Amino acid sequence: MNDPIRIGIIGYGNLGRGVELSVAQNEDMRLCGVFTRRAPESLAILTPDVPVYHIDRLEEMTGDFDVMILCGGSATDLPLQTPRYAALYNVVDSFDTHAKIPAHFDAVDGAAKKGGKVAVISVGWDPGLFSINRLYGNAILPCGEDYTFWGKGVSQGHSDAIRRIEGVETAKQYTVPVQEAIESVRRGEAPALTTREKHKRECFVVAKEGADKERIREQIVTMPNYFADYDTTVHFIDRETFDKEHGGMAHGGFVIRSGRTGKNSETGHVIEYSLRLGSNPEFTASVLVAYARAAYKLSKEGQSGCKTAFDIAPAYLSPKSGVQLRKELL
Amino acid sequence: MNDPIRIGIIGYGNLGRGVELSVAQNEDMRLCGVFTRRAPESLAILTPDVPVYHIDRLEEMTGDFDVMILCGGSATDLPLQTPRYAALYNVVDSFDTHAKIPAHFDAVDGAAKKGGKVAVISVGWDPGLFSINRLYGNAILPCGEDYTFWGKGVSQGHSDAIRRIEGVETAKQYTVPVQEAIESVRRGEAPALTTREKHKRECFVVAKEGADKERIREQIVTMPNYFADYDTTVHFIDRETFDKEHGGMAHGGFVIRSGRTGKNSETGHVIEYSLRLGSNPEFTASVLVAYARAAYKLSKEGQSGCKTAFDIAPAYLSPKSGVQLRKELL
Repeated sequence: MNDPIRIGIIGYGNLGRGVELSVAQNEDMRLCGVFTRRAPESLAILTPDVPVYHIDRLEEMTGDFDVMILCGGSATDLPLQTPRYAALYNVVDSFDTHAKIPAHFDAVDGAAKKGGKVAVISVGWDPGLFSINRLYGNAILPCGEDYTFWGKGVSQGHSDAIRRIEGVETAKQYTVPVQEAIESVRRGEAPALTTREKHKRECFVVAKEGADKERIREQIVTMPNYFADYDTTVHFIDRETFDKEHGGMAHGGFVIRSGRTGKNSETGHVIEYSLRLGSNPEFTASVLVAYARAAYKLSKEGQSGCKTAFDIAPAYLSPKSGVQLRKELL
Repeated sequence: MNDPIRIGIIGYGNLGRGVELSVAQNEDMRLCGVFTRRAPESLAILTPDVPVYHIDRLEEMTGDFDVMILCGGSATDLPLQTPRYAALYNVVDSFDTHAKIPAHFDAVDGAAKKGGKVAVISVGWDPGLFSINRLYGNAILPCGEDYTFWGKGVSQGHSDAIRRIEGVETAKQYTVPVQEAIESVRRGEAPALTTREKHKRECFVVAKEGADKERIREQIVTMPNYFADYDTTVHFIDRETFDKEHGGMAHGGFVIRSGRTGKNSETGHVIEYSLRLGSNPEFTASVLVAYARAAYKLSKEGQSGCKTAFDIAPAYLSPKSGVQLRKELL
């Protein structure tokens, strides 16, 4: 048995805790430290005997870890942290602001190449597993249409947008795929779908005492970009119900490629990839951990620079050898 | 625009015709020849102006093709052809006898390395896309169960087994997944399923005149390995109905990974990959063609030897650049 892969976690929120749990499921890895911006002694982590360090100590511990898994947010943490730490460690992140991925890639690639490290960015399920399935679907059925549906699950960005409205105490927004649309796509009908026809938005809002609920509702459903283009339902509930029923982190979604082959495009095919996730952060963490193994193996081969899920052969994610994989899973 | 990838087809049955159709859908490729064991002049192919050669001419045309796609059968053609031609050309095959893949890999790897060529074996949907999904599912959710369901679709091997029974004129056998089993797996119940609980077998048989149908039925349903462990239904039909209703080549199936995360395995997740294929050979051909592109790119990079779908990063399958892929599909 080889030495286990020494994993570090940077940032200990829901995602960091998920990574901690996932590493414990993988025998070829060991969690060797958690890094935080908080006072380290204030942090109680789940795994006994694993040290917690202040994030400032990262510069001096480069010999003690094989891969750092970055568990901060895409808005402000990762754009700074991933390039910074990619110069020092092999790193993996779940950067998920789709429009900013090209710029993030370039920044991280430069840093990782300078440091001779491997950086894997934007892994998770979307971007990540959904992206891979879009790519395979497009490459195999070049004449066809892509469909991505999300949910049912909480959208953090939309929940935040509601919470910024005056009179709102707290809120959760669920993105719900429209079942009729999915069924039509599955039947190979390749429908042209508007935004409204693909997803519905369902909002659970706790209003502050005395707030004008009708005004809040109106502000939500007419909000540009976030809600105006969707059929949006707003439910006002009390704090107790909110805390009891809306703490879950389930999510999921579907990537469907509908394509045609044949001399006259007479043959239809449908490829569907779907996820039903009990916990969005725990599943995303499990994807990060599998790609941490890939980063380690690629680095051992002497590679460096930034990679996405597109650039990494499936075998790198597995602890098994090529011989085992061909025998057991091919 | 780069020069198109020059593709050759070896073997012109259903699969070879599927490859021909698929190459026509891909702008970065051109079909440059079809090789056959038959008399070349007896073969009418679909694409105008593409030459048909006798298979014996392969030895002398190594400069004229970038990738050969082998479209023979796994029983007797590919075990000989793939190692032989992997020494001369970059090749792709759909070898699908799961138990013999390790030996096939070794034979092809030796030949391809000697010739400095890239050989991609066992691509299609199972082995192939289903294998990749088993691997990703296992790597991401190490604590879990795998489920593969096939169908509804024709099993060539089972149809052949029925046709060997005395008194049978012709027959088609459909493998049908048991819907209740799939639903239980989808709900995350991780059931332990017997062979009988996963698939049913449905047979459509044309009996010769005067044959004892009850004896044929009995011989089918009690046949070891093929039918004895399944709930099997046998329908006797006339030749006209057979020809009209059972010429289709639709197929499909499901790969499901059901796994758990959390401190006490309290969180369930289900990853499902499914295919609904209008034509098994046309879809398999489309997968072969995407991997032909990968073989070409890997060879251009100076790689050689045998690869499976496990060893090839998704980006190699696409005609798009890394920059385009990150922008459009990530």
